[in-house]
Amino acid sequence: MSKDNNQLVVETEFPVRYAETDAMGIVHHASYLVYFEVGRCQFMRDIGSDYAHIEADGCRLPVTELKVRLVGSLSFGERVKIRTWVEENRSRQLTFAYEVIHPDTGAILVSGFTKHVWTDKHGNVIRAPKYWSSLLEKLPN
Amino acid sequence: MSKDNNQLVVETEFPVRYAETDAMGIVHHASYLVYFEVGRCQFMRDIGSDYAHIEADGCRLPVTELKVRLVGSLSFGERVKIRTWVEENRSRQLTFAYEVIHPDTGAILVSGFTKHVWTDKHGNVIRAPKYWSSLLEKLPN
Amino acid sequence: MSKDNNQLVVETEFPVRYAETDAMGIVHHASYLVYFEVGRCQFMRDIGSDYAHIEADGCRLPVTELKVRLVGSLSFGERVKIRTWVEENRSRQLTFAYEVIHPDTGAILVSGFTKHVWTDKHGNVIRAPKYWSSLLEKLPN
Amino acid sequence: MSKDNNQLVVETEFPVRYAETDAMGIVHHASYLVYFEVGRCQFMRDIGSDYAHIEADGCRLPVTELKVRLVGSLSFGERVKIRTWVEENRSRQLTFAYEVIHPDTGAILVSGFTKHVWTDKHGNVIRAPKYWSSLLEKLPN
Repeated sequence: MSKDNNQLVVETEFPVRYAETDAMGIVHHASYLVYFEVGRCQFMRDIGSDYAHIEADGCRLPVTELKVRLVGSLSFGERVKIRTWVEENRSRQLTFAYEVIHPDTGAILVSGFTKHVWTDKHGNVIRAPKYWSSLLEKLPN
Repeated sequence: MSKDNNQLVVETEFPVRYAETDAMGIVHHASYLVYFEVGRCQFMRDIGSDYAHIEADGCRLPVTELKVRLVGSLSFGERVKIRTWVEENRSRQLTFAYEVIHPDTGAILVSGFTKHVWTDKHGNVIRAPKYWSSLLEKLPN
Repeated sequence: MSKDNNQLVVETEFPVRYAETDAMGIVHHASYLVYFEVGRCQFMRDIGSDYAHIEADGCRLPVTELKVRLVGSLSFGERVKIRTWVEENRSRQLTFAYEVIHPDTGAILVSGFTKHVWTDKHGNVIRAPKYWSSLLEKLPN
Repeated sequence: MSKDNNQLVVETEFPVRYAETDAMGIVHHASYLVYFEVGRCQFMRDIGSDYAHIEADGCRLPVTELKVRLVGSLSFGERVKIRTWVEENRSRQLTFAYEVIHPDTGAILVSGFTKHVWTDKHGNVIRAPKYWSSLLEKLPN
């Protein structure tokens, strides 16, 4: 998971929620997938799209594969700072990559990716909507 | 919230999940609403219904009001034991009540209710489906 | 649940997360308690406190009672706008009240309160920390 | 992720919770990590251990890496049937693997693994507790 330095990386930041912690006193590992989702949706809005609109247009983008590496952790009282970028954009598949970094030191705490497939609302695989491809082509890379 | 001793009370039991705990080391208060939902769905299946079928029939039963009192707590390693019953069954509204009890002592740890309204899939208020009323009428009370 | 117009009301706004929705297509009712928590923590930070510091000082503020009324709903693609204020501040108890309003119309979608008790880290009821009381006294009301 | 046919595979089964679904009408991908956790904890209890006891003994087993492949989905009204086994047991690391299968057809819907490291309660890496190793050695493989 290495990102091309020229491509768009969206940063999103928000506080850890108490409900996301567990009895170990840190953010539960499953919560990072929700953080990834927050980063992914912000990325979409930043390039002029919105997953809500994508769904309204009859498209879905379910997750088909995901991976997370956890080398550090976050606790309540800290802020989530997450970097999101498109790792791979194919005609029917889309892969986002993520890094959750320490807000102060910039150290990578958690990293990962989610692989998605474009489908219609019945779950049939389709090609990416044209506006999506054109939005991504406009990105600086 | 006192239940008529003659009516059907369904007990459901399952382990606390680690993800449901928080940094206080106990089950997060919002998780009890999910436990209530588990109890409510089990109640429905026990009387011969199933919320999945209710939805397939085009009906919805969204929550319009809820209340929870927490006098004790649960930790990971303990089991959730929850009692569910119908508190009030009206033509358009339905109220379930719940008690989470200590699996060993029977002491009430958490109690509450959820009030629901019957709607169609567009959110318009409707009368309870006939089979629901007939199922409830058959209950021993 | 009516608020004195002179007291501090903190507004917090953030997007609905996809993970918070359910198969009904709207935000699951339990998620509003997490939203309330986000509003409560923001309120604390805004008056110069922080629940993370409160815990670091050995105090806890568990929920003892909660109530939610749901007259509307939120969907993915919409923003959560939540108003939080202190409904009652007693020596050992604290009650926060909340309103989730429609970001555009201002209509109240969901309202509720959470009642808390001050405890030490072993769960013994204590008096509110002095700095908490002094912070609240400084508020404009 | 292929399992040795001779080793212990624990099956756990429970209903999908409504709160675990999302607006796509299916179980949200992050919920499968919670299902994995349920399977893992059941596995531990089945071999005579309990993660609650492990924590009481001062040990922790945080997740350091995880991977999930989703080729099918589950909806509310269906049951989660999950198979859990130990993929790798090393002195300081432990890897569990999982398969969520269709309760009727046995088709694999979701598979994955979670890699863990043994730590003390301060997060320092330690060797696996002796009783853990001896429990695993007793397993039929």
